[in-house]
Amino acid sequence: MIELKNLMDTEILNYFRRLPDNTITKAMTYSMSIGGKRLRPVLCLLTGELFGKSKEDLIPMALAMEMIHTYSLIHDDLPAMDNDDYRRGKLTSHKVFGEANAILAGDALLNEAFTVLLECYAVHGEPGARAALYISRCSGRNGMILGQVMDLHHETHPATFDELRLCHHKKTGALITAAVCAPAVYAGAKAEEIKLLEEYAGNLGLAFQIQDDILDVTSTREVLGKSVGKDEKSNKTTYVGLFGVDKSRDMAKEATEACLAALSKLRRDTTKLEELTKSLMERTY
Amino acid sequence: MIELKNLMDTEILNYFRRLPDNTITKAMTYSMSIGGKRLRPVLCLLTGELFGKSKEDLIPMALAMEMIHTYSLIHDDLPAMDNDDYRRGKLTSHKVFGEANAILAGDALLNEAFTVLLECYAVHGEPGARAALYISRCSGRNGMILGQVMDLHHETHPATFDELRLCHHKKTGALITAAVCAPAVYAGAKAEEIKLLEEYAGNLGLAFQIQDDILDVTSTREVLGKSVGKDEKSNKTTYVGLFGVDKSRDMAKEATEACLAALSKLRRDTTKLEELTKSLMERTY
Repeated sequence: MIELKNLMDTEILNYFRRLPDNTITKAMTYSMSIGGKRLRPVLCLLTGELFGKSKEDLIPMALAMEMIHTYSLIHDDLPAMDNDDYRRGKLTSHKVFGEANAILAGDALLNEAFTVLLECYAVHGEPGARAALYISRCSGRNGMILGQVMDLHHETHPATFDELRLCHHKKTGALITAAVCAPAVYAGAKAEEIKLLEEYAGNLGLAFQIQDDILDVTSTREVLGKSVGKDEKSNKTTYVGLFGVDKSRDMAKEATEACLAALSKLRRDTTKLEELTKSLMERTY
Repeated sequence: MIELKNLMDTEILNYFRRLPDNTITKAMTYSMSIGGKRLRPVLCLLTGELFGKSKEDLIPMALAMEMIHTYSLIHDDLPAMDNDDYRRGKLTSHKVFGEANAILAGDALLNEAFTVLLECYAVHGEPGARAALYISRCSGRNGMILGQVMDLHHETHPATFDELRLCHHKKTGALITAAVCAPAVYAGAKAEEIKLLEEYAGNLGLAFQIQDDILDVTSTREVLGKSVGKDEKSNKTTYVGLFGVDKSRDMAKEATEACLAALSKLRRDTTKLEELTKSLMERTY
């Protein structure tokens, strides 16, 4: 999948290079280009391919997904939220551009994502507009943002296991679901196919989040590119906190198997998505 | 225009009443329902009417405009930005819900605006999608957000008159332009009509902003519902600071006349828009 990640890195640079050279462009570009796995864009390209959509056709959607993800990280890192100085091994937006510009850079990326979705998809027909709508529902008050509000709440009100699951399902799962399903909506996939993809994405988000919790206690800042041990310090309820590292690893493995089972029911050539899914279990950052 | 303002107040309450009763809904609802002039929604309904669009058809667009405006106010009021405790006579979002939830409530309102625009317009055809795209360009990195970044910059780098004009044109003018022009785009207005509406909206934004500067020195917190005298305290370049109150009044009047001139060239029944335009010059808050 490294070639798709590299492709997205290039596309991101190209996109932002053509914008006016000013403060807001600099701040948007900075956070968009300091790396990361590009998981959501890669998922977007891979599921699009399953349904016969070319990379060229899907690159703007993949870009929009990464813009939404990046805006959420910029706001999440703010002093009023997680107060993180580092992200992906680099200073966070507010450490470089100041808090006010970081807030605006996040706003601008969210807004830009919708400009791209409208310009490249919605104005060209209903399937593109439906895909954009699917994404907006996943990223909004009943999706990712709800997860962030829950996460904040649980900083002072310890979560039960069910609450933890729901919180992750929204905070991490919703945007992964958007990346996986929106290309299928755009391609006119059948309702039962979307359902299987949602099952896949839900489990992938879960596996991904458990792995995050594990890395927070087993990795180092150098490898992870962000602070570690934060969950324990902030008394956050995590999989590791509730079940320990070994049992958490088993749960991540189970979720991964549920991913593969959902893919197998799709009756399409899902080899690349399977590979990606398995590789996420081996990740160290 | 009071009946349109009241209609919007009711529509806003109805919209948010049907959302799940949770923290993010509460924070979104709070800022959306603490009043204000509803200028952008009213403009949206009035220009839509000019081009034969019914109120019913345009209410979701008007709602989306107010959501974008409100999100920008929530973020603008944050301690890292203008640090305002009061807005429209009530405590600002972060004073009631805390900074983190205020940031997320702003994000959620911006996201929700696009959900509404996609769901009620873009999925139903190209004109609706083009209207949504027009709005997203006005609210984004080259529109309102650019104006906010400039405004921040000028807190420490005094603006020249040209810079001040451009800053207002983006910060205030862009969203007013969206409210005025997007309904016309939706209705399939001709390019020259959109141009006249842009001329109208640009001058309206200007008149509105000069009036704001004047009220900041001539009004009281009780009447205005927010802190006064802030501009002088923060050394901000304003029309009043550059030209004094009397000359500023003349300039606002000139801009208003330019508004009316643009409307008259439209060759449609613009009586209500004219009334609204004139009434804004008499406003005390």
